[in-house]
Amino acid sequence: MKVISGGVTAAKGFTAGGVHCGIRKSRAKRDLGLICSEVPATAAAVYTTNLVKGAPLLVTKAHLADGVAQACIINSGNANTCNANGVEIAEKTCALLAKELGIKAEDVVVASTGVIGQPMTIEPFEKGIKPLVKDLSKDGSPRTAEAIMTTDTVKKEIAVSFSLGGKEITIGGIAKGSGMIHPNMATMLVFLTTDCAISSAMLQKALSTDVESTFNMVSVDGDTSTNDMVVVLANGLAGNAPIEAEGEDFSLFMQALNSVTVSLCKALAADGEGATKFLECTVTGAKTLLDAKKAAKAVICSSLVKAAMFGSDANWGRVLCAIGYSGADVDVTKVDVAFSSKVGTISVCEKGASVEFSEEIAKEILSEKEITIKVTLHDGEASSVAWGSDLTYDYVRINGDYRT
Amino acid sequence: MKVISGGVTAAKGFTAGGVHCGIRKSRAKRDLGLICSEVPATAAAVYTTNLVKGAPLLVTKAHLADGVAQACIINSGNANTCNANGVEIAEKTCALLAKELGIKAEDVVVASTGVIGQPMTIEPFEKGIKPLVKDLSKDGSPRTAEAIMTTDTVKKEIAVSFSLGGKEITIGGIAKGSGMIHPNMATMLVFLTTDCAISSAMLQKALSTDVESTFNMVSVDGDTSTNDMVVVLANGLAGNAPIEAEGEDFSLFMQALNSVTVSLCKALAADGEGATKFLECTVTGAKTLLDAKKAAKAVICSSLVKAAMFGSDANWGRVLCAIGYSGADVDVTKVDVAFSSKVGTISVCEKGASVEFSEEIAKEILSEKEITIKVTLHDGEASSVAWGSDLTYDYVRINGDYRT
Repeated sequence: MKVISGGVTAAKGFTAGGVHCGIRKSRAKRDLGLICSEVPATAAAVYTTNLVKGAPLLVTKAHLADGVAQACIINSGNANTCNANGVEIAEKTCALLAKELGIKAEDVVVASTGVIGQPMTIEPFEKGIKPLVKDLSKDGSPRTAEAIMTTDTVKKEIAVSFSLGGKEITIGGIAKGSGMIHPNMATMLVFLTTDCAISSAMLQKALSTDVESTFNMVSVDGDTSTNDMVVVLANGLAGNAPIEAEGEDFSLFMQALNSVTVSLCKALAADGEGATKFLECTVTGAKTLLDAKKAAKAVICSSLVKAAMFGSDANWGRVLCAIGYSGADVDVTKVDVAFSSKVGTISVCEKGASVEFSEEIAKEILSEKEITIKVTLHDGEASSVAWGSDLTYDYVRINGDYRT
Repeated sequence: MKVISGGVTAAKGFTAGGVHCGIRKSRAKRDLGLICSEVPATAAAVYTTNLVKGAPLLVTKAHLADGVAQACIINSGNANTCNANGVEIAEKTCALLAKELGIKAEDVVVASTGVIGQPMTIEPFEKGIKPLVKDLSKDGSPRTAEAIMTTDTVKKEIAVSFSLGGKEITIGGIAKGSGMIHPNMATMLVFLTTDCAISSAMLQKALSTDVESTFNMVSVDGDTSTNDMVVVLANGLAGNAPIEAEGEDFSLFMQALNSVTVSLCKALAADGEGATKFLECTVTGAKTLLDAKKAAKAVICSSLVKAAMFGSDANWGRVLCAIGYSGADVDVTKVDVAFSSKVGTISVCEKGASVEFSEEIAKEILSEKEITIKVTLHDGEASSVAWGSDLTYDYVRINGDYRT
């Protein structure tokens, strides 16, 4: 397996584009993106578990009932959530796009991201869809990736290719963050494309399994969005023998998919709102996978741990505190904690108690941009990883005045 | 019932004091406090549910097994948690104090607050206990309240008196916050004193019932501390007929206790680390009490709601989002949201969708220091209230460099 360029258009038969259609006032940023497959593709998706759901999610869910899609249209600048006419607008958007592309409206996936509860009209879509379709091209992935950004500061794209039964398969993806990030059974907007031939059931199985250890282990601020959605389209143009059951091919596909999703998770976390540091928490030696996940996610979600990391402060007591309230079944007198970055690793807590360590070296390690908090529970064989970001002045600034 | 001065020494037979003993380097702040009853008192307590527990909690729990206590000693500056010699130090502290006071070591409650996992020695206690006991007086409540402060900016004291069977009963309390505040079955350090005659079982019942709707509904940062503890001492000196079962007297006692604890909860929330605003979320019309509590607490805990309140931004979509992921059983198409402060109330969301409102008036309302977020679910009769604070630059500053 190797990492390649091209994002969501790396796989055979996919094109993408992005334009400014006027949902955002500033012309400086694209606000409408499109991903297209030249043939109908097998499709699978996972959605937010928030009871408040964006209108586009409801429409997309209905459209994906048959496991087939051919295009994804996504706007930023307005979440189209808690609007009385939200479903109507989302359906109209699909119809307008389908007409322009000459495909079925039921084969369109629609997604929105931005402020919740802001009035929305169909006009920007009516105006934007024609130029958007014109913009479709094999090098369009960065333009789509930009069109779906909100407070994100960098575009998030990745693609990998690998060999399956003599055929080269490609999986690519784009994602957007970067606040209201605490996915539960789904995540923020993520679009994945592949030319792999795979049945709808196996594609859904691959995606649902994967998100449990990837997107569901990312948190920026503990808020589970109303519009989280991960969609994968598989158009089969790689020409491999279709994957229709578990087995070696499915495993290879899962591995490649996982390398794409982990890469996007890390990018989402590193670009958390206001973040100056990327945080990773690895938990090993847990009794069960669930215990490992609970502990890792509690550490990554703790406001106090996040603020300490912002301050490069080796305040490991906060890590232990988070493990203690995480709900994980742990023996707190066995827990070891170490902080690690590219300049080194330092043990700060052994068997649940303090060990002497150099504050200077700890500061040096924690002053890096990428920090790993290593937790060893000495209680079993299970392990897990969670990703997040530090809590900074800029998170407060961005969210104290995001809407107005 | 009326509010009176005197805090934890307002009730008959209680004295208090506070000194600097050297746990904190700065001599400017007292770091060791003491509350004393002239006779052994009935005692009850609730503790953190964090699996990591401060050593003083373990010792206190053992000492309160018989439902009797006569003194509470509390230090700030070091949580005495995750220290190999923690229990030994806590026990020695009780023994030293008991000897000085001429009481039993088993009748001493011990508590600590400060940094977790910092080495601690008995020396400051050895040095400080004699002057501490000398400092005991009927006007000592403010000195104890100061001695238990960490990042708190104001002392938290309250007392009320009421009449029971012709006798005047007093209940007083002190509390400290102000970070790592997200109590679960207990809270930060809170000490309550009363001269009411009440059995140990009824006192525990009163306290355990009360915290469910008071301290457990406060959140500053979502982190449940390792050292949370609420203790109440009832020395019976008011001379009322002892409360030994439910009935009118118990109800009157519960009402008075609740007015003390709600006052301390609001003070804790208002003095949340870095807070510029006190937030209250009222949820009415819920299906069940649990649904009301889940919804209210999710709104109060949301980083995004908290940051919006800091910015005086009427971003009600974040309120709806939090209700949506709270786990409460709600029909999101029926939810109304309004923002309220002393200058007025403004409706911003009806039936789960946006309503037109004046941004200027909303800004004016949200620029006040005390904000109420009013949520009506139109789904039943249950209601709940939760308290918290806004998320500010100063929360990040305080916690980016608390330890060093």
